[in-house]
Amino acid sequence: MLPSLVALTMQDLLAGGLFSLAALEDAAPVALQMPATSSGWKAWNRFRTLCDHHVRLCCALELTVDKTSEKELERWLAEPVRCVILSPSTFLLNRSGYPVLPKKAKALLEQLFRRQVQVIIAEPQSVEQNEGLLPRLSYIARLFQALPPLSQAERFAYSHMDTLQAPLQPLADNLESETYELFETDPVKYAKYQEAVFIFLTERKQEGRPMPFCVMVLGAGRGPLVEAALKAAERAEVEVDLYAVEKNPNAVQALRHRKRRDGWSSVQVVPGDMRSWDAPKKADVIISELLGSFGDNELSPECLDGAQRFLASDGVCIPISYTAALTPVTAPGLWANARQGAAGGGVADLETAYVVHMQHAFYPCSAVKDCFEFHHPNWTMESNDRCVDLDFEIEVDSLVHGFAGYFDCVLYGPEHISIHPKNFSVGMFSWFPMFFPLRHPQYVPRGSIIRSHWWRRHDAHKVWYEWALTEPAPTEVQNPGGRSWPIGLL
Amino acid sequence: MLPSLVALTMQDLLAGGLFSLAALEDAAPVALQMPATSSGWKAWNRFRTLCDHHVRLCCALELTVDKTSEKELERWLAEPVRCVILSPSTFLLNRSGYPVLPKKAKALLEQLFRRQVQVIIAEPQSVEQNEGLLPRLSYIARLFQALPPLSQAERFAYSHMDTLQAPLQPLADNLESETYELFETDPVKYAKYQEAVFIFLTERKQEGRPMPFCVMVLGAGRGPLVEAALKAAERAEVEVDLYAVEKNPNAVQALRHRKRRDGWSSVQVVPGDMRSWDAPKKADVIISELLGSFGDNELSPECLDGAQRFLASDGVCIPISYTAALTPVTAPGLWANARQGAAGGGVADLETAYVVHMQHAFYPCSAVKDCFEFHHPNWTMESNDRCVDLDFEIEVDSLVHGFAGYFDCVLYGPEHISIHPKNFSVGMFSWFPMFFPLRHPQYVPRGSIIRSHWWRRHDAHKVWYEWALTEPAPTEVQNPGGRSWPIGLL
Repeated sequence: MLPSLVALTMQDLLAGGLFSLAALEDAAPVALQMPATSSGWKAWNRFRTLCDHHVRLCCALELTVDKTSEKELERWLAEPVRCVILSPSTFLLNRSGYPVLPKKAKALLEQLFRRQVQVIIAEPQSVEQNEGLLPRLSYIARLFQALPPLSQAERFAYSHMDTLQAPLQPLADNLESETYELFETDPVKYAKYQEAVFIFLTERKQEGRPMPFCVMVLGAGRGPLVEAALKAAERAEVEVDLYAVEKNPNAVQALRHRKRRDGWSSVQVVPGDMRSWDAPKKADVIISELLGSFGDNELSPECLDGAQRFLASDGVCIPISYTAALTPVTAPGLWANARQGAAGGGVADLETAYVVHMQHAFYPCSAVKDCFEFHHPNWTMESNDRCVDLDFEIEVDSLVHGFAGYFDCVLYGPEHISIHPKNFSVGMFSWFPMFFPLRHPQYVPRGSIIRSHWWRRHDAHKVWYEWALTEPAPTEVQNPGGRSWPIGLL
Repeated sequence: MLPSLVALTMQDLLAGGLFSLAALEDAAPVALQMPATSSGWKAWNRFRTLCDHHVRLCCALELTVDKTSEKELERWLAEPVRCVILSPSTFLLNRSGYPVLPKKAKALLEQLFRRQVQVIIAEPQSVEQNEGLLPRLSYIARLFQALPPLSQAERFAYSHMDTLQAPLQPLADNLESETYELFETDPVKYAKYQEAVFIFLTERKQEGRPMPFCVMVLGAGRGPLVEAALKAAERAEVEVDLYAVEKNPNAVQALRHRKRRDGWSSVQVVPGDMRSWDAPKKADVIISELLGSFGDNELSPECLDGAQRFLASDGVCIPISYTAALTPVTAPGLWANARQGAAGGGVADLETAYVVHMQHAFYPCSAVKDCFEFHHPNWTMESNDRCVDLDFEIEVDSLVHGFAGYFDCVLYGPEHISIHPKNFSVGMFSWFPMFFPLRHPQYVPRGSIIRSHWWRRHDAHKVWYEWALTEPAPTEVQNPGGRSWPIGLL
């Protein structure tokens, strides 16, 4: 049944002494059989920590849920559960006499199906129960078959499951053509931009301002924002002069090709860096898409501060503001992957944040709280350095591997794009959350407060984040001086 | 006053942001001014942890002791206190009107003097107090001059202050001549051995056993135990046949030289390994000095088990038993030194125990508890593997960097040698405590229990220890399979 898996109980492992650890270095993963209860999780957490968070150690979860709270059960979603063991006693009989799972067990199992677990329907201990084997089997099969199909965004996420990616640095590096192509297919983002620009242009028109309106798209890429702005202008029935500024020479070629092909007569393609461009006039609106998964982490604040000198004094930026947000997470797989050298080995691997293409890879231990906020234009040239302290309450005993980072962005008026769980832009797949690892996972007992500290800092060459905890126990400051993860300004 | 020291308050550092961390890489140490109170210690602990336990960060301690308990004050003894700041308000006036320090402050200062602190007598804020400057200065000077002189053992310890040494592996390596010479000068150890052998021989004589008694010294080195045994025999007025077994060829030469020079006619020098020696007869007593700082860590159990085949069935081993003992310690300096690469870089540095030639380098957080125990002879050939769980209560908030290891050894009858704090053999300097580091210092709030786990294990080639915590939070098992610190059997 489990050809590639060695299933052991805690007793087996302890009886074998810690020699068993050596077995982890070999091919087969080791699954530890654990009840899904609170004490089961504590035993699991103790054991995997003793094993130094070995990536080959996983759980075979006995779905015994009686007195275990939902929050305690959900904790398992972040753990490396490879098998779910359903003993006969886990099942109830419904009114028609058929075996079914209790509500909490059913809910957990449905979520675990998405994580590709194997289900083990354990052998009954008596003959009467044995007669129920087939009904139990078909009940589980029906549960599985009844799962809703994956959406487009979910399918995309699946193809990147558990992958850690270094965040893009579009300011320092030029993006690949494939990267543009991928993000241009987002079914939500450009529709939102088009709506935001439409609202803005309509307001200006209603105010009776003289046309044509001057629209500047900064970081135009291969043109999706230009197209959205032109469509918005057409819908609003306004004339625009549109400047498409782009520093990547390959993208500039693509823009020029589209201008010819699509007859973009009102569009001027401007090759170069928005921060040094000598604009011929002032813009009524500056449109950009410079956000990273954590909002400002692709240096949108610095770029737009550098560009606002050619924004009219009553001009508007789209987006108008954005806010980064954070929550502590349990993420054993991500953390172990990061430690194994995603960023080149050593301390740096755990002082770099990663874009994570899969919500399943971590489980939030607390509520999401807002962190850094930025508004445009920034006429007073307020510093883009930030320092925020965030406290998080922990409801159940947790092992905290780091933080998940999100952003929420107001484009204009009521239009926003967001990967914040509270108001996620459904269907949008251009951004996945960020994972900020801690160098050492922190065990946090329930009822504790995690006090975290976040800095955004800069020097002449780079911007960087630093982060640390001081409660329940202090940690070292991570990425001090941007030593492991600098975000280049040049 | 402090030419090589940058003194900063916590506010200075925080105002400067974490850029200040970069300054730590430069030459001058940074001293953080801290009150000696409990909240002062917490702030210090937080800050040094944020700074990732940087070795250049130290404290300038304001000796304000009002409501601080003795235990809380003693915590500072393990910290890198470089200066003690005495403000006018720290002093009391005695009956004669002279300024003196309160009892607790005086006790702490006297202990800090031994740690070579600078004392800063702070300027008074008013004229009246200023008149007291000279009396305060001379009071402190008298305190310093009244310190008792160092004993021989203390002077020896001073010359090795703060040094981490890998434990000897006399089984795998041959000792240097200087090492023998150093340890032969111990004023206590050989006197204790002589007394133990004397008691044994006297008992045998009183029982009317036939002489000569067969005495075997296993691991005779350059002869100090041989000399002790011969003197004991002379005092007890018994005849002995003495076999001096030694595997180190250089030491064998020295033994043969002494036999000629000192007329040791009853002594046979036997070159070779005691485990493979084909003894001509059975011994009445086997005398050895194979103990390390942690008792069994130089493989005395394995050596004596291998040698007891030539011990008479009613024969005795001296030592007859020994017990290792442990206590959790705060030891920031030792830990930081170990991390910096005492054992060759990487994880191994914090998975090796060190002999530490200085009691001042760490401060115990709890009581000392017994760990592994061994008895000789081991006729049933009971395994020398061990597994012990030890709980320690923590009275004050502590940062635990590891454990101090000791031994207590019964030679024979009432005679023992010990480095256990409860019954330390005063004046003996052959052993210093061991320091077992934790890979990550653990912050442990007062009232918590530290649950620690200790294993002694072996395979065909080596013996090793493993250790881990499970409370208040689990840690990884250190040195699994002896990967970082094997003790060679061959």
